[in-house]
Amino acid sequence: MANQVTLDRAFAACAHPIRRGIVERLAEREKDADEGMTVGEATHDFAVSKPAISRHLRVLEEAGAIVRVIDGRTHRLRLAEQPFDDAADWIGQLQRMWQRKFDVVEQFIAESREDAAGARTDGRGSA
Amino acid sequence: MANQVTLDRAFAACAHPIRRGIVERLAEREKDADEGMTVGEATHDFAVSKPAISRHLRVLEEAGAIVRVIDGRTHRLRLAEQPFDDAADWIGQLQRMWQRKFDVVEQFIAESREDAAGARTDGRGSA
Repeated sequence: MANQVTLDRAFAACAHPIRRGIVERLAEREKDADEGMTVGEATHDFAVSKPAISRHLRVLEEAGAIVRVIDGRTHRLRLAEQPFDDAADWIGQLQRMWQRKFDVVEQFIAESREDAAGARTDGRGSA
Repeated sequence: MANQVTLDRAFAACAHPIRRGIVERLAEREKDADEGMTVGEATHDFAVSKPAISRHLRVLEEAGAIVRVIDGRTHRLRLAEQPFDDAADWIGQLQRMWQRKFDVVEQFIAESREDAAGARTDGRGSA
């Protein structure tokens, strides 16, 4: 199970459209899988300043979602192997817990109906 | 597909241990599914001020993760039916895109190997 700080960082990293846009772009790119994309390729089109882009990239790196490979003066970005896996696990676990709760409620309702039907049958039987 | 603001809010709502703690507590509680929990039940034990708790609850409500039912002076909280579904979908889609990318790379490597093996066989055959 992921620790709280890991989850905080992963979810915070996902909580901005530019950061989601960058990871989507890295995930979509199918060629040059090993090389990754330059920072320019991964971040052009986003109408924000370079310092803002740098901050978004830092948030993604600290969340373990992207990896930066420095090759001389070229910085290349790759998506991490299991981006946001812990975050996905947490939501999945929550939804399963919640589903089980509904299952228990449904079972209770079904049993109540059966009991009620049984009571009616018994009533008729003894009449 | 969820819009950007919906995703921003869902991920931001997940990005704090107290907010995750509150939704976990609401998801775990199996009894009184319809009634929900009082704010006190859902938030006791968290060592933060009442105003801080109120802010966390507001973030969760705005993200559509929890529902507040006001019954006179008692506020009851329930988890929404599909908490963080859009967020889970976004991560899932990203991971599938990423997986396809690896599949393409693996296929390329496999085909390259076959080609290389074929070339060797051909070489031997014509020798």
